[in-house]
Amino acid sequence: MICNNITIQNNTLYFGGLDTTALIKKYGSPLYLIDEARIRHNCRVYMQAMRQAFGESALPLYAGKAACFKRMYEIIREEGMGADVVSVGEIYTAYRAGFPMEKTYFHSNNKTDEDIVYAMEHGVGAFVVDNVEELYAIDREATARGIKQKVLLRLTPGIDPHTYEAVATGRVDSKFGSAIETGQAYAITREALQLGGIHLAGFHCHVGSQVFDSEVFLRAGEIMLAFVAEIYRKEGYLAEELDLGGGYGVRYLESDPYIDIAANVAQVADHLKLTAASLNIPLPAIRMEPGRSIVADAGMTLYTVGTIKRIPGYKNYVSVDGGMTDNPRYALYRSPYTVLLANRASEPCDFVCSVVGRCCESGDILQENVSLPASVSRGDILAVLTTGAYNYAMSSNYNRIPRLPVVMVNAAAADGKTDYIAVRRETPEDVSRNDL
Amino acid sequence: MICNNITIQNNTLYFGGLDTTALIKKYGSPLYLIDEARIRHNCRVYMQAMRQAFGESALPLYAGKAACFKRMYEIIREEGMGADVVSVGEIYTAYRAGFPMEKTYFHSNNKTDEDIVYAMEHGVGAFVVDNVEELYAIDREATARGIKQKVLLRLTPGIDPHTYEAVATGRVDSKFGSAIETGQAYAITREALQLGGIHLAGFHCHVGSQVFDSEVFLRAGEIMLAFVAEIYRKEGYLAEELDLGGGYGVRYLESDPYIDIAANVAQVADHLKLTAASLNIPLPAIRMEPGRSIVADAGMTLYTVGTIKRIPGYKNYVSVDGGMTDNPRYALYRSPYTVLLANRASEPCDFVCSVVGRCCESGDILQENVSLPASVSRGDILAVLTTGAYNYAMSSNYNRIPRLPVVMVNAAAADGKTDYIAVRRETPEDVSRNDL
Repeated sequence: MICNNITIQNNTLYFGGLDTTALIKKYGSPLYLIDEARIRHNCRVYMQAMRQAFGESALPLYAGKAACFKRMYEIIREEGMGADVVSVGEIYTAYRAGFPMEKTYFHSNNKTDEDIVYAMEHGVGAFVVDNVEELYAIDREATARGIKQKVLLRLTPGIDPHTYEAVATGRVDSKFGSAIETGQAYAITREALQLGGIHLAGFHCHVGSQVFDSEVFLRAGEIMLAFVAEIYRKEGYLAEELDLGGGYGVRYLESDPYIDIAANVAQVADHLKLTAASLNIPLPAIRMEPGRSIVADAGMTLYTVGTIKRIPGYKNYVSVDGGMTDNPRYALYRSPYTVLLANRASEPCDFVCSVVGRCCESGDILQENVSLPASVSRGDILAVLTTGAYNYAMSSNYNRIPRLPVVMVNAAAADGKTDYIAVRRETPEDVSRNDL
Repeated sequence: MICNNITIQNNTLYFGGLDTTALIKKYGSPLYLIDEARIRHNCRVYMQAMRQAFGESALPLYAGKAACFKRMYEIIREEGMGADVVSVGEIYTAYRAGFPMEKTYFHSNNKTDEDIVYAMEHGVGAFVVDNVEELYAIDREATARGIKQKVLLRLTPGIDPHTYEAVATGRVDSKFGSAIETGQAYAITREALQLGGIHLAGFHCHVGSQVFDSEVFLRAGEIMLAFVAEIYRKEGYLAEELDLGGGYGVRYLESDPYIDIAANVAQVADHLKLTAASLNIPLPAIRMEPGRSIVADAGMTLYTVGTIKRIPGYKNYVSVDGGMTDNPRYALYRSPYTVLLANRASEPCDFVCSVVGRCCESGDILQENVSLPASVSRGDILAVLTTGAYNYAMSSNYNRIPRLPVVMVNAAAADGKTDYIAVRRETPEDVSRNDL
């Protein structure tokens, strides 16, 4: 199986040690499941790998945009990680969860003046500053409050991460950050050093999501360290922190490679230490921002099969009671997912079909060319694996379809509470709540 | 301008007769605007065209999935149209708005048993039945209640509407409906005629959205009428209603053609009357399902410009305080939109840029190759036109960004209430409301 928290017993799919068919009976359909133990495992992999490779000053920041709700921040807090937040909604959620706000880093290519005020009022630790207009706006607000706001500057190192275009953010031609290549990175750094309301803590870059090859981190790290050294030489300023952004890829399909995160982080650390030494600068405290790789394989979505449509000479369709409203990633990116029948998990799969949603839209497809047991029928339970990241987070009420609940599983819970609701299921009343 | 409810006065954009820059000051940024007068105009175009061409039995149904909130159904109700609803959320919203539920038609390729119960409990007029499994489920529930449920059967006439693949739903290879070509349409009709809980009222087809050419309605209508005649000949059953689905295209760009809806509907009517006569059957009562063409050009989105990024040798980016969370249509379909600066609406536009959103995602683009005044700067008001359909409806809380309010404009309001809130702006608390 894709991830070792998934097993099959008696023809039935188990997730995090629990029977998925029992969970859907208990909580209704459709349903997001998140495995608390797997999240904690993934957090510990990053925490240990980074501490071991880079020392105690290193810190992984959970990129909440992958999956943001109160319970997530409680778990991340307990695991000792920081958090990357991207909006007032994420800031509020972390705040409400009792997250130590000094360990939050506020991202966004376009922070409004209201966002800046909101973030300062809620004690956000650092602003990751995208551009010079934003730098001035932060300086104005910080000066008015009589504080020096900690910031990192987001730079674009000019790396093409060789991942999908839609997740490629390290290139010079990007809406994000200030480019080193064009001199804009140097210009914004000089500005930051002169502003009274700004405490420049260091630099940030992000070379893309779903990275399977440390090469991009090595290359980006080299470029960033060369920039740190240049600034030190020219301006006498030594960066305290260097945030490498992103995280490692996760497995959506059996054919995806396994990543040894600890080994990869160690390799990056070795290379960056050597690079820093050759540049005659100390290595700054390292940050990374795993989001997907913390929560993706901790998630699974369960649906109930409705219609099975066999169109002779054309194609077969299996409709479920969810779709692009709870997982728009196939519609947006043609993202691959592993799909199977939870209640016939050991049966041979020789029925090739498109798994489609219930939306009145022909693009509402969860996955094409799925193989299921030929006996698939109305009432069967269909599982889509590895949906922990960017599913609940990207869900909508398109067609005014109420959003799914998030149910946490935790088979080893000391108090016996092996499953519990983290986000309530929306009702028809909820989706109309703001209508006047 | 794209639509005659948009004007420019003193370098400022007016929408539905009101100053957009004053509206954004009053209601905050970003903001959806919907022009009530334009909705009513569009409703009347369809009502009059269909009544005149097909007689008093004809009825356009508003396809609520284009924009669904309570106030919309009140307006549609007042204009005398029916409504096509697609989920429990839409049913609840129509019900709450006091919509006459006997004029609602319940669509979806996958109605769950719970959906069927909910729809019957709320007095939905007709079910548009997608497939035979659903037909049986409706029959079971209707029989248990001792009623005969009115249904139309959704058939696929096998028309390729020559529109975009993502909005092409009339082809045989579709998740929707039962295909005439394969004999499945005939089989489901025979079943429907034998079931005690089913009142078969007729047939439905949908050949695609954003149709600029009546040819597809003519061809689909012909095929459907031939099917009606065949069923009459073989089974002695005469369809009372024929629902042609869809509506005509709307103008997103100045280069898009104008559609004379009345002339087009008259052309379809002439052709279908001749066809019916040649088949020796009476023409059933006609339904159409305009959604986009009722509300798209009644809508506009206003944003505030944040960052302007000029990357020498690459591209220019203008970031606004919204994006794919309030309008995912460029990310999903590369949909074209007309974009301009509301507060510099008469200035020459020679600055070519990508207009991007605030999401932490490089695919968060509202439009590419937009020409704006070169003086564009932080604080300017940017307008995206023709956003009434599938913008609010498809919006999400990705990045936990709170959703925009819908503000109605109605310059000719008898009571002087020229603008009012139809959907409240979400707060950070709202987006975390269901977190436990």
